[in-house]
Amino acid sequence: MKRVSACSRCFASRPFSSTARRRVIRPITDLPDRIKPSFLERPDATLLSLHWPSPPRNILITKKKRTPGITNSLIEYTSHLTSNYPGINIILEPESASEIHEAVPFPVYTYETAPPNGTPAYLSDKTDLVCTLGGDGTILRASSLFSHATAVPPVLSFAMGTIGFLGEWKFREYKRAFREVYMSGASDAYAKLEFPETGTSPSPPLAIDDPLDKPLSYADIRGKAMGPNRTARVLLRNRLKVGVFGPDGTRINSSVDQDTYALNEVIVHRGASPHLKIVDVFVGGRFLTEGVADGMIISSPTGSTAYSLSSGGSIVHPLVPSLLLTPICPRSLSFRPLVLPANTPISLRLGEKNRGREVDVSIDGRRISGGMGVGMEVRVLGEHVKTPTGDWVGGVPSIVRGTDGIGMELKDEDHWVGGLNALLKYNYPFGDQDSGDSGGRA
Amino acid sequence: MKRVSACSRCFASRPFSSTARRRVIRPITDLPDRIKPSFLERPDATLLSLHWPSPPRNILITKKKRTPGITNSLIEYTSHLTSNYPGINIILEPESASEIHEAVPFPVYTYETAPPNGTPAYLSDKTDLVCTLGGDGTILRASSLFSHATAVPPVLSFAMGTIGFLGEWKFREYKRAFREVYMSGASDAYAKLEFPETGTSPSPPLAIDDPLDKPLSYADIRGKAMGPNRTARVLLRNRLKVGVFGPDGTRINSSVDQDTYALNEVIVHRGASPHLKIVDVFVGGRFLTEGVADGMIISSPTGSTAYSLSSGGSIVHPLVPSLLLTPICPRSLSFRPLVLPANTPISLRLGEKNRGREVDVSIDGRRISGGMGVGMEVRVLGEHVKTPTGDWVGGVPSIVRGTDGIGMELKDEDHWVGGLNALLKYNYPFGDQDSGDSGGRA
Amino acid sequence: MKRVSACSRCFASRPFSSTARRRVIRPITDLPDRIKPSFLERPDATLLSLHWPSPPRNILITKKKRTPGITNSLIEYTSHLTSNYPGINIILEPESASEIHEAVPFPVYTYETAPPNGTPAYLSDKTDLVCTLGGDGTILRASSLFSHATAVPPVLSFAMGTIGFLGEWKFREYKRAFREVYMSGASDAYAKLEFPETGTSPSPPLAIDDPLDKPLSYADIRGKAMGPNRTARVLLRNRLKVGVFGPDGTRINSSVDQDTYALNEVIVHRGASPHLKIVDVFVGGRFLTEGVADGMIISSPTGSTAYSLSSGGSIVHPLVPSLLLTPICPRSLSFRPLVLPANTPISLRLGEKNRGREVDVSIDGRRISGGMGVGMEVRVLGEHVKTPTGDWVGGVPSIVRGTDGIGMELKDEDHWVGGLNALLKYNYPFGDQDSGDSGGRA
Amino acid sequence: MKRVSACSRCFASRPFSSTARRRVIRPITDLPDRIKPSFLERPDATLLSLHWPSPPRNILITKKKRTPGITNSLIEYTSHLTSNYPGINIILEPESASEIHEAVPFPVYTYETAPPNGTPAYLSDKTDLVCTLGGDGTILRASSLFSHATAVPPVLSFAMGTIGFLGEWKFREYKRAFREVYMSGASDAYAKLEFPETGTSPSPPLAIDDPLDKPLSYADIRGKAMGPNRTARVLLRNRLKVGVFGPDGTRINSSVDQDTYALNEVIVHRGASPHLKIVDVFVGGRFLTEGVADGMIISSPTGSTAYSLSSGGSIVHPLVPSLLLTPICPRSLSFRPLVLPANTPISLRLGEKNRGREVDVSIDGRRISGGMGVGMEVRVLGEHVKTPTGDWVGGVPSIVRGTDGIGMELKDEDHWVGGLNALLKYNYPFGDQDSGDSGGRA
Repeated sequence: MKRVSACSRCFASRPFSSTARRRVIRPITDLPDRIKPSFLERPDATLLSLHWPSPPRNILITKKKRTPGITNSLIEYTSHLTSNYPGINIILEPESASEIHEAVPFPVYTYETAPPNGTPAYLSDKTDLVCTLGGDGTILRASSLFSHATAVPPVLSFAMGTIGFLGEWKFREYKRAFREVYMSGASDAYAKLEFPETGTSPSPPLAIDDPLDKPLSYADIRGKAMGPNRTARVLLRNRLKVGVFGPDGTRINSSVDQDTYALNEVIVHRGASPHLKIVDVFVGGRFLTEGVADGMIISSPTGSTAYSLSSGGSIVHPLVPSLLLTPICPRSLSFRPLVLPANTPISLRLGEKNRGREVDVSIDGRRISGGMGVGMEVRVLGEHVKTPTGDWVGGVPSIVRGTDGIGMELKDEDHWVGGLNALLKYNYPFGDQDSGDSGGRA
Repeated sequence: MKRVSACSRCFASRPFSSTARRRVIRPITDLPDRIKPSFLERPDATLLSLHWPSPPRNILITKKKRTPGITNSLIEYTSHLTSNYPGINIILEPESASEIHEAVPFPVYTYETAPPNGTPAYLSDKTDLVCTLGGDGTILRASSLFSHATAVPPVLSFAMGTIGFLGEWKFREYKRAFREVYMSGASDAYAKLEFPETGTSPSPPLAIDDPLDKPLSYADIRGKAMGPNRTARVLLRNRLKVGVFGPDGTRINSSVDQDTYALNEVIVHRGASPHLKIVDVFVGGRFLTEGVADGMIISSPTGSTAYSLSSGGSIVHPLVPSLLLTPICPRSLSFRPLVLPANTPISLRLGEKNRGREVDVSIDGRRISGGMGVGMEVRVLGEHVKTPTGDWVGGVPSIVRGTDGIGMELKDEDHWVGGLNALLKYNYPFGDQDSGDSGGRA
Repeated sequence: MKRVSACSRCFASRPFSSTARRRVIRPITDLPDRIKPSFLERPDATLLSLHWPSPPRNILITKKKRTPGITNSLIEYTSHLTSNYPGINIILEPESASEIHEAVPFPVYTYETAPPNGTPAYLSDKTDLVCTLGGDGTILRASSLFSHATAVPPVLSFAMGTIGFLGEWKFREYKRAFREVYMSGASDAYAKLEFPETGTSPSPPLAIDDPLDKPLSYADIRGKAMGPNRTARVLLRNRLKVGVFGPDGTRINSSVDQDTYALNEVIVHRGASPHLKIVDVFVGGRFLTEGVADGMIISSPTGSTAYSLSSGGSIVHPLVPSLLLTPICPRSLSFRPLVLPANTPISLRLGEKNRGREVDVSIDGRRISGGMGVGMEVRVLGEHVKTPTGDWVGGVPSIVRGTDGIGMELKDEDHWVGGLNALLKYNYPFGDQDSGDSGGRA
Repeated sequence: MKRVSACSRCFASRPFSSTARRRVIRPITDLPDRIKPSFLERPDATLLSLHWPSPPRNILITKKKRTPGITNSLIEYTSHLTSNYPGINIILEPESASEIHEAVPFPVYTYETAPPNGTPAYLSDKTDLVCTLGGDGTILRASSLFSHATAVPPVLSFAMGTIGFLGEWKFREYKRAFREVYMSGASDAYAKLEFPETGTSPSPPLAIDDPLDKPLSYADIRGKAMGPNRTARVLLRNRLKVGVFGPDGTRINSSVDQDTYALNEVIVHRGASPHLKIVDVFVGGRFLTEGVADGMIISSPTGSTAYSLSSGGSIVHPLVPSLLLTPICPRSLSFRPLVLPANTPISLRLGEKNRGREVDVSIDGRRISGGMGVGMEVRVLGEHVKTPTGDWVGGVPSIVRGTDGIGMELKDEDHWVGGLNALLKYNYPFGDQDSGDSGGRA
């Protein structure tokens, strides 16, 4: 019998009863290769459906730093996953791995710290799903781990007390949220089976195939089904492709010769220098203007509610395929922010007038190391997330709350419209409500 | 004895027991002349002290229109005043007078409706104090009744459920508020006497001199004292002096040949016309710019939180002696609002380019009647509220809450700083509070 | 022979030698049906190529009003077209037709004035190409003539001394511009033939088939070729689909039961009313916010540099598929303009709080007649300009200058980037250029 | 004869023929004490008149750095002064003194470099007049040399090819400009004498008293008079009094225990730190708001067109007695800039939430040395420039062009209104000028 033999192999190769081996930190190279989901359009809907070919196994979890209680939440969450789902492997950032591996009864995987301007080796080859515990900063940090990958794993993000634009789920929802993502795309035959949310799990992780060898099948996972049509909703957030080049045309922001992807924005800023920067802006290969300013932002629509907004940029819905060019404190009354097509290349060039001055260049909040000086150029292009053949690829696939938890479908976009009001305190009226009088502004 | 004789005269000339005569509406010309208070500087303070030479008697009360319950509040308030304070005469707007005079056991005074662009005759000669029940619109309307007067009576304003920038007091505070204003400036000898707020009034209105003949003395009013140093606080709000002139140089906004005072602003606007207006702006007699816009606002600091703010104008503290020039939807990226010295004359001229087009001109929300067309000019200057000899005159003397109701002095300016937060929802932060992470905007 | 018979028919039915009949104004119903071009993508380019199946014949020309010399330009232009191109029929607005038909030696076609909120009957069935002589306002007016048509003819616009965002060509370029449009899509066989721009036309309009019967062929038109790959460039400007509905759900902005298309924007505005409007905004069917403002604009990217910009809206490139929601003078510090996906429906509803107040609703500057009051709703959706099968349809196909006149291809987008600088005075720097000093903002 | 004796003394004590002594750099302590002018109000004018009790002698000249030709201009200017005016002493910055003292036939005075956060010793005791050759940055730097002085000498500023808000005169006007300042306040008796501008000077510096001993008299200076009523015009620019205090309440921005004066602004900024700063803002001693931003600016009206404007601050006329509070890239939609009364104290406090983070604090572009961290507080108050007795003191007395050079009085404020247009490119209109059409924004 398959299940028996699987079991015996399992015990042989992964002796879970052995405390010694269990508490070790393992390299991610030990993990099976990544399972890539597909994203399907749904009729009359703007969000996509997540479909796993087989259940995800390698789960990367990042957490917010310096936050009381966050480590306990991490332990609670990883314990739930490993106890209730078969074949789950937990990947943590090196710091988190060191912090909790002694405290948990399952192995913890981690990766080697990336070189400057680089990303961790093998991480994008091994990660099926990313979960973040924290706010927008934590999501940005997680996204940066995949800033050289064209296919970012789906991201399930939990706000930990704080709120953000990118985070979707409350931590207390983690059981339902993970189940929704995990089962998304299981065929109806299995999906129809009932699963009591609070009940004990009928299929503990023992009785399955060795995840190191071959993928699980949803047929092995009984009782987790969400019901028909309950796939997880995905907002495929366009990223920016950013290249930073020296005066000699060589790339200076990457350990390898490729662009860096940004979820929010790339920023050129005077930093500690008191001097305004003089930046030549090219749009579609043509000179647009010479910006004299503290700096310049090129932002994705996702980043439109971050630094760009603070600098007076427009609020752009994440589904508008566009790039935002927003000056920071310009020395001009008329340097208004622009919204440009996503497929228009934009370049920022630090011209001769800046003399020996350096600038700070940062991508999603991470500063590029190495002197950025005169002649340097930042080239940006929006990422294509739909191929000519209609497939959806690239971007950061963000899991959006698709149901209200009691089986009702939520309307799409709820999250963004709601976010405007909740996060931006959008359109709070001022002044007298005295609308009965003709004299006032009523 | 003075008091006896006063009493006999009183009964003879004003038979309060006669229901018939009591419920009549009387003309304000029957009232004694106005008592003008003085406004004194206090050391280390920005607000002024109100000092009455003798107790105020003629109280104009305006109320918000079309508001449920407001008439009952008016009756309650006027009844309190006439029952507890000697010699009080109630002046109402004609509409209010008609509405309540049958319902109250005291006579009601009113005035004749003003001609177009004019103000009611005699009103500023007879009114000691203005009380408003409503919001900013109600205060603006009350202020407009004195828009040709250089000395506006003090204004005590009660917000009726709504909040505003100009209104200061809650209606439930009316007993304390009125007493504070009424007694403001009474000499210490009388001020020291105790007054139980909830107790019955020891000196009913019967036993005093006829208010029609000569002023009351604070010596006659026992038991109302507020304690030493408890004068009412006055914010003297600068107004704008506005003249509107036709192409031939004749004044067209006034029934008499004088400027109109505005508390908030004067607005030139395209109104129902779809066409942008082309307005030549002169500052200090010199041409500044040709504004092509929906319109133009010249605002006082008090008005800086009204229409000017909606149009992108600056928030200016009411004690900054200044005028604001704010364009409305200009066809320019660089037509920023300006803050100019209060004593700089500003002119807006509708030049030839506008051809036959008309504009709307309104002062504190009241539209100027008569066609405003090509060649028309609006001239504005800030009002001087301090004479060269150091006296404070002019402006709209707004009574500001000076104590917290339990005897503690409030710091000055509280009302404005507090108003910013309460009314404007000033500086509500947005986005992620995730400041523990280096990646986000934290 | 075909050509002979055609000729004889031609002379029989359209006696061009008869002065009497020539100077008549004819109805457009006499014209042959419209020829619809197709729009093809070009590799690595954002603009489309114009391809006529056969040469255009019916040319609608609109001109700016009340402008000296414009009538002479119209006569010059129409004379050039009818003298140099075979089978050209000139369609004019009724007013222009009356003005010039006596002065020109060719017949002039016109249409009947449209009913209120409607568009002229048959015009979109008969017009092959629109030419405008004037500025943005003239283009808007021309576009409004097709505001109920899903397929607007290509628009070739000449700026007449003024500059605009929408106008592309200088009037002195009209010969080259028209030829470029006219020949766009002719097959290479013909396109290769030389054409001396200043030379006399070898094929006068006499020798061709009767245009009333069947289309011309490019084989008949020798000597006009532009050279290979010299098709006219088309920017397909997305429009807004606008429906205005009464409280009872019936449509009130259209003589027929269909949406109105707007090139720039739809505006809800208080107009002559002094009262702020209270507008409920719905995005994607969900309530977003209650706007308290002078009004609200929903704009296309094309309209982003018109009224929306004056109201603080974003500058959005016309190729970003989006809708802009821009409040006009809102009573809020935080009611920022939004950029939303073009396929998201937006509704503006005038709620009960507005009591009996009316609003002005205008579409591309044309006010909707009929009372817009409480309960009224404006529903907007962006137009789809690309079908699921990849065809380009809809929008306003604007002819963009694709070559520099001496045979060099211009880079795409030149017009927009250049327009920003020329029209908006975009990013004019201010202040001291004293960058040698450490003290200043340098 | 006085002039003879003066001459003999002069030769004895100041042997101009001695090359050795002439080319030395002397300490400013050798100079006679400063002559303080008074500033008088003129009827119906906003600018003041400059009145010297006796002719100025000690002239500090600062120049822009790293600018070609500027050193030659400095030599030309100082040579003109020493050749044409008696008793002139030239004070230069140490760097300039080293640069040119060998090249000029007169002694050059200088001072010792100031300690960190300090100002040069004795400079304000010895300087009669400041002349600047450069732009706004040069003026700011000159002003900073007096940032601990309550009485700044008058400043005559020459723009050197660049333009600025603060600079008034073109360098080619230097002869007239200096003469106008030098003679300002000479009594009419002398002022009436004619002076041919291009003629040779009748009274070379030989024939006067030793300036080291006692002041010159205008009686000694014939032929320089400007004509009656031709005093120099002074705009007394209010400064900010800034104190920076550590968490323990000790002052940390000054070598002495006193406030630093700023002409433009004080800035708190995150600098090289990627983290937003959390700044508690207090106005008039009351908590206003918690600002989360890149930084915060408190600006004078003079500084309103510098960094504050880049950050979205208001444009405030320099004669409006006010302070501007302007956030830099705030994380809020509603943190609008404020204009507050000049006499309202404002504090910025870096609260506990910033943890170990530092900020940059700079005053008029000069960064305060020493760690500015948690608990630090910046306290600002506007400078009083008019005493209760009506005298004008303090501020930076800026010499404004008062005549047009051919004897005509200029209207006041010309410089500021003109500067708005010239420097800010204020109100450049955009879009179509197509006002003849009803469809567009016209």
